[in-house]
Amino acid sequence: MNEKKLNFDSSCPAPINKYDKIMLAHGGGGLLSNKLIQEVFFSEFDNKYLNKMHDGAVFQTEKGKMAFSTDSFVVQPVFFPGGNIGELAVYGTVNDLACCGAVPKYLSLGFILEEGFAISDLQKIVKSIKFAADKAGVQIVTGDTKVVEKGKGDKIFINTSGVGFVKNEVNISPDNCKSGDKIIVSGTIADHGICIMSLRAGLEFETEIVSDTAPLNHLVREILSVSDKINVLRDPTRGGLASTLNEIAASSGRGIMLYEKEIPVKEDVKGVCEILGLDPLYVANEGKLLVFVAEEDAEKVLETMRKNEFGKDAAIIGEVTGSDDKIVRIKTSVGTTRIVDMISGEQLPRIC
Amino acid sequence: MNEKKLNFDSSCPAPINKYDKIMLAHGGGGLLSNKLIQEVFFSEFDNKYLNKMHDGAVFQTEKGKMAFSTDSFVVQPVFFPGGNIGELAVYGTVNDLACCGAVPKYLSLGFILEEGFAISDLQKIVKSIKFAADKAGVQIVTGDTKVVEKGKGDKIFINTSGVGFVKNEVNISPDNCKSGDKIIVSGTIADHGICIMSLRAGLEFETEIVSDTAPLNHLVREILSVSDKINVLRDPTRGGLASTLNEIAASSGRGIMLYEKEIPVKEDVKGVCEILGLDPLYVANEGKLLVFVAEEDAEKVLETMRKNEFGKDAAIIGEVTGSDDKIVRIKTSVGTTRIVDMISGEQLPRIC
Repeated sequence: MNEKKLNFDSSCPAPINKYDKIMLAHGGGGLLSNKLIQEVFFSEFDNKYLNKMHDGAVFQTEKGKMAFSTDSFVVQPVFFPGGNIGELAVYGTVNDLACCGAVPKYLSLGFILEEGFAISDLQKIVKSIKFAADKAGVQIVTGDTKVVEKGKGDKIFINTSGVGFVKNEVNISPDNCKSGDKIIVSGTIADHGICIMSLRAGLEFETEIVSDTAPLNHLVREILSVSDKINVLRDPTRGGLASTLNEIAASSGRGIMLYEKEIPVKEDVKGVCEILGLDPLYVANEGKLLVFVAEEDAEKVLETMRKNEFGKDAAIIGEVTGSDDKIVRIKTSVGTTRIVDMISGEQLPRIC
Repeated sequence: MNEKKLNFDSSCPAPINKYDKIMLAHGGGGLLSNKLIQEVFFSEFDNKYLNKMHDGAVFQTEKGKMAFSTDSFVVQPVFFPGGNIGELAVYGTVNDLACCGAVPKYLSLGFILEEGFAISDLQKIVKSIKFAADKAGVQIVTGDTKVVEKGKGDKIFINTSGVGFVKNEVNISPDNCKSGDKIIVSGTIADHGICIMSLRAGLEFETEIVSDTAPLNHLVREILSVSDKINVLRDPTRGGLASTLNEIAASSGRGIMLYEKEIPVKEDVKGVCEILGLDPLYVANEGKLLVFVAEEDAEKVLETMRKNEFGKDAAIIGEVTGSDDKIVRIKTSVGTTRIVDMISGEQLPRIC
């Protein structure tokens, strides 16, 4: 493994051992996920695209710059307030492409269905996929369907992959963040994860928390048209804001400072977080954008975001410090500063 | 549904009913698969790319012609003579792209792992993926990993999606086949399916049947360089030769005649087919190419194929007739003619 790769230093769990078995936490988006990805996948597939740890790959072809991304969705339950696995699958890949600075164009759909799954439910999901694709302005151009025996799957898993095109002058990448960059989030955090966890905990009748699943590509197009000083774009999904920021800090070699009181969190989301003992910084979002932009353009980008339906609660929540310690810190509401680590284990399995 | 779509007329099962549940046969590549795809997916996503019923989508971008394909792999068992799910996943998508006339370039990998799966097995699979990608000359550029609880998956499912580039003058599509076209298969049929079924039936120590999993992109490149009269390329995977030819007959509106004695089948594969009561025409292949080429170029293409390691047993096995009845017929070894229908139910679940 080369030096460019992530380094989560002292808090890293022990290296993967050949007697180890896959644990839920290997899919949680935290430290164990990163271990698996680096020790099992990257050690074999070492190449410049993967090593960027981006949401997708951007490559120069003789025909221009393209982005390509993939995501599998195993969310449980399949239907939830604000959406279902179908919209999630479309917006997930659309957003990954948008965070590469691409205009998403074409999507593929791969279904793994469990024997016995109701076709009426499949039809509902397919309608949501169509709705979401239209809303994002992408086309479903190819697909595949597999069926596994009852008890060998869980209702429905969906893979979406997508391609998009990147303007030559756009250069967005997690290792691009620069000292002094302002960090903007497009709205309230933790909505999706708390929506799903409330459902599982049986709290859904006491709250009105809905998933934030949404397409971010139009928002990205708008901010790229007003500023050429946007360096990093990411949607903080699995592992939440904390994990995403730790990844960016590690891959860029920068330190990050957050301001707790600026981070938008809905009151009822805060409430459920307290009941369930969760920190919203680590909870998944499915329709939120993180923007790293040079200070001089930050206000302009913020204003542009607030005019978009998916950015109306946008806020500047932190900045890239002058340090090269790769640590994410937060200035708390009470004025103290603490380190925001990457999560080690599994907080919310099958959140997306 | 518009008129361009497939029509499997009288042999079609009843339309999908809202009370229906997913059955294994919905993933078998036969009539029920086609029903599901058309009534649930195509009725919603109606567009010119999907309606071609090709192995992938080919689209014209402002930057040239591109192909994009996706496939999920759920083969059980994961390891089998001749390969494992890893090679299968790489070659499956590489071959789908090649059958669009594309040069495959970039692949994505989406893993759905079951909690408790041995990491040493995952490592073996990842090594096979790397080996296969190198052999095919493609790069793994982006990926995703999800983990589901024990009992909610089955060891490992892999989605691969891929992109490739198509030369402007190449125009390969299942609706392209023309009256008089010769049909060439690149080698013996039914090897992969019978390898897997032998394993499941406990016959593996009595036979030496190995999967034919192989990359076909180099073979495709070679034949496209010697002939500009190749009209259709397909790899007959799930549902075997019979289902693939029925799809081509339906989407092109042509009749097809096969010559049974010309179709290469290994003796031990024939033997297992007899024991298990299977027809090799319906058994999956994972490294075989079907070529529809104008008669005047057929011998030249055949010779070129035979020089390639994956085409040495290539044979002309049939032709497109002058009829527009969309029926696949076979002249049997005893001189009679029978219809080769699309399979209705499920012959071999989870074969790929």
